[in-house]
Amino acid sequence: MTTVISPQEVAKHNTKDDLWCIIHGKVYDLTNFVEEHPGGVRVILKQAGKDATSAFEPIHPPDIINRYLSSDVCKGEIDATATLGQAEETETDEEKRLRLARENMPSIQEMYNAFDFESVAKTVLRPEAWAYYSSGSDDEISMRENHNAFHRIWLKPRVMVDVKNIDLTTHMLGTQTALPLYLTGTALGKLGHPEGELVLTRSAAETNVIQMIPTLASCSFDEIVDAALETQTQWLQLYVNSDREITNAFVNHAEKRGIKGLFITVDAPQLGRREKDMRVKYSDDAPEEMEQKDVSRNEGAARYISTFIDPSLNWNDLSWFKSITKVPIILKGVQTSADAVQAFRHGCQGVVLSNHGGRQLDFAPSGIEILPEVIDALHKEKGFNGENFEVYVDGGIRRGSDIFKALALGASGVGIGRPALFAMSTYGQAGVTRLIQLLQEELAMNMRLMGAKSIKDIKADMVDTRNLKDHFVANPIDHLSHSAYERMVPRGLLSSKL
Amino acid sequence: MTTVISPQEVAKHNTKDDLWCIIHGKVYDLTNFVEEHPGGVRVILKQAGKDATSAFEPIHPPDIINRYLSSDVCKGEIDATATLGQAEETETDEEKRLRLARENMPSIQEMYNAFDFESVAKTVLRPEAWAYYSSGSDDEISMRENHNAFHRIWLKPRVMVDVKNIDLTTHMLGTQTALPLYLTGTALGKLGHPEGELVLTRSAAETNVIQMIPTLASCSFDEIVDAALETQTQWLQLYVNSDREITNAFVNHAEKRGIKGLFITVDAPQLGRREKDMRVKYSDDAPEEMEQKDVSRNEGAARYISTFIDPSLNWNDLSWFKSITKVPIILKGVQTSADAVQAFRHGCQGVVLSNHGGRQLDFAPSGIEILPEVIDALHKEKGFNGENFEVYVDGGIRRGSDIFKALALGASGVGIGRPALFAMSTYGQAGVTRLIQLLQEELAMNMRLMGAKSIKDIKADMVDTRNLKDHFVANPIDHLSHSAYERMVPRGLLSSKL
Amino acid sequence: MTTVISPQEVAKHNTKDDLWCIIHGKVYDLTNFVEEHPGGVRVILKQAGKDATSAFEPIHPPDIINRYLSSDVCKGEIDATATLGQAEETETDEEKRLRLARENMPSIQEMYNAFDFESVAKTVLRPEAWAYYSSGSDDEISMRENHNAFHRIWLKPRVMVDVKNIDLTTHMLGTQTALPLYLTGTALGKLGHPEGELVLTRSAAETNVIQMIPTLASCSFDEIVDAALETQTQWLQLYVNSDREITNAFVNHAEKRGIKGLFITVDAPQLGRREKDMRVKYSDDAPEEMEQKDVSRNEGAARYISTFIDPSLNWNDLSWFKSITKVPIILKGVQTSADAVQAFRHGCQGVVLSNHGGRQLDFAPSGIEILPEVIDALHKEKGFNGENFEVYVDGGIRRGSDIFKALALGASGVGIGRPALFAMSTYGQAGVTRLIQLLQEELAMNMRLMGAKSIKDIKADMVDTRNLKDHFVANPIDHLSHSAYERMVPRGLLSSKL
Amino acid sequence: MTTVISPQEVAKHNTKDDLWCIIHGKVYDLTNFVEEHPGGVRVILKQAGKDATSAFEPIHPPDIINRYLSSDVCKGEIDATATLGQAEETETDEEKRLRLARENMPSIQEMYNAFDFESVAKTVLRPEAWAYYSSGSDDEISMRENHNAFHRIWLKPRVMVDVKNIDLTTHMLGTQTALPLYLTGTALGKLGHPEGELVLTRSAAETNVIQMIPTLASCSFDEIVDAALETQTQWLQLYVNSDREITNAFVNHAEKRGIKGLFITVDAPQLGRREKDMRVKYSDDAPEEMEQKDVSRNEGAARYISTFIDPSLNWNDLSWFKSITKVPIILKGVQTSADAVQAFRHGCQGVVLSNHGGRQLDFAPSGIEILPEVIDALHKEKGFNGENFEVYVDGGIRRGSDIFKALALGASGVGIGRPALFAMSTYGQAGVTRLIQLLQEELAMNMRLMGAKSIKDIKADMVDTRNLKDHFVANPIDHLSHSAYERMVPRGLLSSKL
Repeated sequence: MTTVISPQEVAKHNTKDDLWCIIHGKVYDLTNFVEEHPGGVRVILKQAGKDATSAFEPIHPPDIINRYLSSDVCKGEIDATATLGQAEETETDEEKRLRLARENMPSIQEMYNAFDFESVAKTVLRPEAWAYYSSGSDDEISMRENHNAFHRIWLKPRVMVDVKNIDLTTHMLGTQTALPLYLTGTALGKLGHPEGELVLTRSAAETNVIQMIPTLASCSFDEIVDAALETQTQWLQLYVNSDREITNAFVNHAEKRGIKGLFITVDAPQLGRREKDMRVKYSDDAPEEMEQKDVSRNEGAARYISTFIDPSLNWNDLSWFKSITKVPIILKGVQTSADAVQAFRHGCQGVVLSNHGGRQLDFAPSGIEILPEVIDALHKEKGFNGENFEVYVDGGIRRGSDIFKALALGASGVGIGRPALFAMSTYGQAGVTRLIQLLQEELAMNMRLMGAKSIKDIKADMVDTRNLKDHFVANPIDHLSHSAYERMVPRGLLSSKL
Repeated sequence: MTTVISPQEVAKHNTKDDLWCIIHGKVYDLTNFVEEHPGGVRVILKQAGKDATSAFEPIHPPDIINRYLSSDVCKGEIDATATLGQAEETETDEEKRLRLARENMPSIQEMYNAFDFESVAKTVLRPEAWAYYSSGSDDEISMRENHNAFHRIWLKPRVMVDVKNIDLTTHMLGTQTALPLYLTGTALGKLGHPEGELVLTRSAAETNVIQMIPTLASCSFDEIVDAALETQTQWLQLYVNSDREITNAFVNHAEKRGIKGLFITVDAPQLGRREKDMRVKYSDDAPEEMEQKDVSRNEGAARYISTFIDPSLNWNDLSWFKSITKVPIILKGVQTSADAVQAFRHGCQGVVLSNHGGRQLDFAPSGIEILPEVIDALHKEKGFNGENFEVYVDGGIRRGSDIFKALALGASGVGIGRPALFAMSTYGQAGVTRLIQLLQEELAMNMRLMGAKSIKDIKADMVDTRNLKDHFVANPIDHLSHSAYERMVPRGLLSSKL
Repeated sequence: MTTVISPQEVAKHNTKDDLWCIIHGKVYDLTNFVEEHPGGVRVILKQAGKDATSAFEPIHPPDIINRYLSSDVCKGEIDATATLGQAEETETDEEKRLRLARENMPSIQEMYNAFDFESVAKTVLRPEAWAYYSSGSDDEISMRENHNAFHRIWLKPRVMVDVKNIDLTTHMLGTQTALPLYLTGTALGKLGHPEGELVLTRSAAETNVIQMIPTLASCSFDEIVDAALETQTQWLQLYVNSDREITNAFVNHAEKRGIKGLFITVDAPQLGRREKDMRVKYSDDAPEEMEQKDVSRNEGAARYISTFIDPSLNWNDLSWFKSITKVPIILKGVQTSADAVQAFRHGCQGVVLSNHGGRQLDFAPSGIEILPEVIDALHKEKGFNGENFEVYVDGGIRRGSDIFKALALGASGVGIGRPALFAMSTYGQAGVTRLIQLLQEELAMNMRLMGAKSIKDIKADMVDTRNLKDHFVANPIDHLSHSAYERMVPRGLLSSKL
Repeated sequence: MTTVISPQEVAKHNTKDDLWCIIHGKVYDLTNFVEEHPGGVRVILKQAGKDATSAFEPIHPPDIINRYLSSDVCKGEIDATATLGQAEETETDEEKRLRLARENMPSIQEMYNAFDFESVAKTVLRPEAWAYYSSGSDDEISMRENHNAFHRIWLKPRVMVDVKNIDLTTHMLGTQTALPLYLTGTALGKLGHPEGELVLTRSAAETNVIQMIPTLASCSFDEIVDAALETQTQWLQLYVNSDREITNAFVNHAEKRGIKGLFITVDAPQLGRREKDMRVKYSDDAPEEMEQKDVSRNEGAARYISTFIDPSLNWNDLSWFKSITKVPIILKGVQTSADAVQAFRHGCQGVVLSNHGGRQLDFAPSGIEILPEVIDALHKEKGFNGENFEVYVDGGIRRGSDIFKALALGASGVGIGRPALFAMSTYGQAGVTRLIQLLQEELAMNMRLMGAKSIKDIKADMVDTRNLKDHFVANPIDHLSHSAYERMVPRGLLSSKL
């Protein structure tokens, strides 16, 4: 029989040495766990004696407590009547701002490109969600470079080609998809939408693109697979656990559930420093007397989720992987041609050229930038025939022309992460679907105006990459000279005082 | 006998299933047509039961209803008395802003360069007109690149040359003109001026330059030809219709009317996405209940005019064109040297290197950028002698030095589009004429200061193109560093608090 | 006997057909001259019936009326008593702003570099003076490039050199000067200072640098020569008149007065379009009814002074020059190595690499940019020994390091124009002297920190010119991406709300 | 017996010809010294008759008066009672601003990177301290380039390497340190913290890094050495005095006190012009009548400290240095490969590639930029084996990735200057320690994500330096075009009026 506990009772256990929390209607004694919390002590202290559900939910899959804590931490269920009897919450200024922003969102029909979703998301997402989704590592140089790099590739359009019918379909790891695009794995979907990754699953079905399920989803793996159509293809992004048995079990389970590609993340032996995220997470209202001494733990959502990734993962582990599964293995996060070649030699089925959305190592090159040299190196490898190893790119894809450029340079497809999150966080499934349709329309138009009727017609000589490797930074400015100079202003603007 | 219908009667037919409009004093029943409207359903719904003339006029040539709709859609004439009896319109804020802007326009004598007209146009044009004229496709990278590319070409001025007399005249497709400049074809002239393209015709006559008549003019083809002097040369820009008979008839008619060049547009098998234009067109006040489901149609003026362009046009069609006309055929919108060579081999008389003013494919290179490689490639072609095939450039021409640079790199002349539209929209014929004279003066000064007495003296070794192909984008910035840095400010500006 | 005329009488002659003006106390009938005025009709019309002295003075040398108009245009002298009796002038807002700016000028001791003078000048100069001095041609690309080009040259400092004693003296055309710097010829000095060019003469004497006297000075040539010390060296900048006899007489006179260098301007067969200047000159209060039809004349101070320059000047004229004078002939405004070589072959003693301060042809390269190729080309010329032909550079010199870089690349010295004008216009002689001393100190410090004890120690291998020719323009920006991106802000600035 | 003097008495001696000051409770007659003050006359005049301690202290070591002035300038001690009886000081606006800024400083736990400290320092430092620490020479081009140069180096991360354990320790001149980083010598520490350089000493001990003691410290050399742990390594930065005996005695003393490296500064035969610093120092409230004529002395803190540096120091002096000490000699401020090779040939143990934090010669290259060519040149030297000569870099180090890049290109370690000053000036010892720990964490993460387990694993092929030498400047902009262009704005930002 279950003990029923009143909120007042829970509220008494509000110190570090006696710490209870309510999560999903159950009361947990976390006193012994608090010091071991991967996300740091502080964040739990703030919930001491309170209902922590809303803080817990977007960051943890539902089954995590059962999986990792012993059953005796559960002290009983909260008295639902009492809870309802609590004073109703008053809306904070921040909540009001967000509510108004939601109420005044533009129509979904006014979303004309991927940036539109992002700019709406910026106004309606809670600060910690925006910070987690939008931030990159360190100075965010690599993150912004990801999209910028595409701007250094220009097109060479061919004219007078019959482009009445355009075919965007292609195959990726054997699956036919509507266009060479997939939804890449991104963590913590419930920060942006209450249903989390399931929204993406449904849009993927609607638009016939592949979804890559992330290890660190807010929803459980099975929830996401259950949400898929039977005919729908899903891939799995995998963080490798130090305990290989856990990984083994997970991979076997995934294979049984029909996962068609295993994307092992190799660019994250440690999770990156995302300072915007860290700043948002640092909270002034934490009770001073409770504050831990070790300040280095307060490091934002990004670090909360980093405990179970094995930093010792190396090339020797690949034979083990191939021994436990028949699912194609793709290394996600390769950043040099040398490592792409290694992946081929070790029998992988492909690589994703990616710097993890600019969230790991700042100054890591963007995938699109190294794509040409990777393709070159692979073509020099014995046994590579252009068909038996697939190269994907993610990072910075925002336009149909970005997809076109990646294909022209040899990619089999591209992944999008943040754009889908922003579309999901604003307009839900309809948003993600519209986003994919917009990219589809843009790609179709690009192909038509480039004189390419099908994916196969997209060729390397259609792009001009001469400036692709030119990284320049904001340059020193002669401020004295610039200040003294009087800008020219055209006459019309003067007279209208613009 | 004509039926006379009262405005009150028309106003009753204001639903999708019973939809009347007044256009030029006539009442039309558009109920059956509404779903087939190339410009989309929504835009017609907004006019249901109303006088649609002012919305109709700048976008359609006057004879279009007669040409495309059966005669029975016309229900009669509007009761002119009743119409006059209507309540007078009150001026909206927007209309007031525009009226004041018009009243306070600077003197035409204060227009010193092409940008001045543009900046005045920005203040006096209705938003939808400004959006249609000024917008480019996608991120507008190609559009802005068009002018920027000229800035990457520097001059090598020769001194101590007798430049007392400067001769700017030249020949283009056999016509002698005042300078190597023509007015290129641009659509929807009445958005900017009530008389539309006729204004350009008259200025062209006044300044002795050639006008290219657009297929999608607001005025009818014959109106524009009729407005020309007998001695005046006009070219025709042609969108090729899927129904070749329509094209055949049009070309034959044009030849009879004395057209001296047929410029077949080859860069528009689909009209580009111009998002500024699309945003302006999206209108919040459309009645929700009438709204169509298919949102992809609401896409701005640019798409309104795209129905009659054949996307299957290809090289094989050229022999047919040569069989139906003796008028010189020039391909407009060539963007690679390979296609320029193809045009030469297929017996065309020339090409226009153009990316359609940056309105079609973003990241398509500007005409000036590919001009040197096109000229190189042609010189390698057997049979090409530098005289029997003319290469034109449009896009981004704003200064006399831009013309000089294009000529130095081998162009026979350049076309201007937007600058003429902006001059027309602000000061009418006087504006266009002054614009051309300013460019003429600038070119004359450039030739004098470069040591070139005539067009033939303008040579490739007078320009420095080493940076022409250097495309750089806005680069990642270290915002932390930039924020912490304190700018230097010269002393005088500090003390005067500027 | 002189007629005495009342101001009231003069005021009656205030129409285009009967136009009197007072200049320096004399009354002139300019009715017949008005149409021939090089500066345009309009500017005289504004003075009709009034005292034009203050408008006349800064733009014309004092003796110009006597030299160019017949004596009968002088109708008499103004009645000085009556003039004094006139109502005192009230101070306009603009005059008040300028007076306050003058009164609140920072101390001259706070002028730490050339830009400080410029920024003060910007606040205290009358708009037409600021416009004339500060403007460049067209888009002012070349003008700004002049200084920017120096920023693309980096230094390679040598250490562990005994630099206790630094010697900046050098010889230019045989004259020993305090440093390798001269004041180049600049027109209309009285716009900035009531004593005009004489201020520069005195500072040049004080600091032992050479002054180049401009043809278009506000003071007469003899006034400027008279103001010089006997030991002081002056050069003459020469615009060549179409009437060679005028030029002959002027050169002969200059030679007699001891001029040591004849700098023939070759980059100005026509004076450049300086649009800022033109805009300021366009004056709204000109009486409409008087306005001339030919609008092309209203083109600012820059065009006022362009009449007497012969556009037919060419290489063949050099032998004539050498026949009329023994003064060394230097071509000022050479912009290619080919023309520098031509100058050497035609027996000139040197060239000034200059684009006329960016005031003539926009996109003409800066002198410093072409200096290395000019020196290279000269070294390939038979007979050139590095001593018998001097190469000067002007344009964009603002720092001692700029001088160092020019010397390292082979220049014999550099000229400064605008900086001296701005220093003169703000602090008069003390300002110009301080400017030169600041440059001298900066050059000395540069030499010491570079390990160069004397001018001869400054060598080409001390500078890094690899980026010298890299001209880049403002590049297309993805505004959508930039708008959606949230900048990083360091924590300290957030908390202090900066 | 000591004379006791009242403040009132001191206040009487307040003219240039009779000038007393109170410093640290003693009264000095500085009448005869005032003209010889290295820091200029003016700054002393402002203290005439007053207590100068707070102005004196941060700029001078405590023993300087005893060392340089004769004992009879001391007139006695101030009457402490009387002093205490003085009216309490009222807080100025500036003092209030600084006090509030101090009170509202963010928590040290919110400092996430080196820029955070800088931005806080900007708000809490007195203007003269901020100006002295933050300023660079001339246009500050080199200063800003120092950090920018690192941004032109990109990384080539290797994946699938076992990076469980990362070892950051290394040896520098024989000392093992926690990471390849040292605190370089920076002057006037008490401007930022009352305990000055001692703060750095203690943090260096706490974090196990080496401190380089500056010649121009606010604390005396012995104070700094006394503050160190016995096991702690310190180096000495040396300005060479013209009087070699002074230098000899200093070096001998330093050797006896256990200094492990002698870093002779070679880039400062004259101290640089730092204009921000000069402007702050120029003080409007100086009594006009007292003002000296020679304005060139008023040149900020930077020049105050330049008297005792010998500009004649050269390569021949090195043998003398080696004759007087066994301490390793490193040349600090080498800026070319030629001079690095010279240092090796002259038997030095290393060089610091440095442009003195951009505070000396503007346009001197940053150390990181010339590092590759220096390493190349050394490898071509006979006798160089990669172990017997160490190359350090300082300037612009702000991130762990900067350290990684320097090591990859061959540096043995890097020095940081300003970041430590800013951390010290804001959070004292805890600040400096946190700064070093942050850099340590960043470097560890970089090594882990790069696949480098130890310092030795960091290799040249892990960095992409292709753009390292690309210096570009702010480029000419077509302001007319930019003004007329209407930026694109994504829809979400429009609707929320951001």
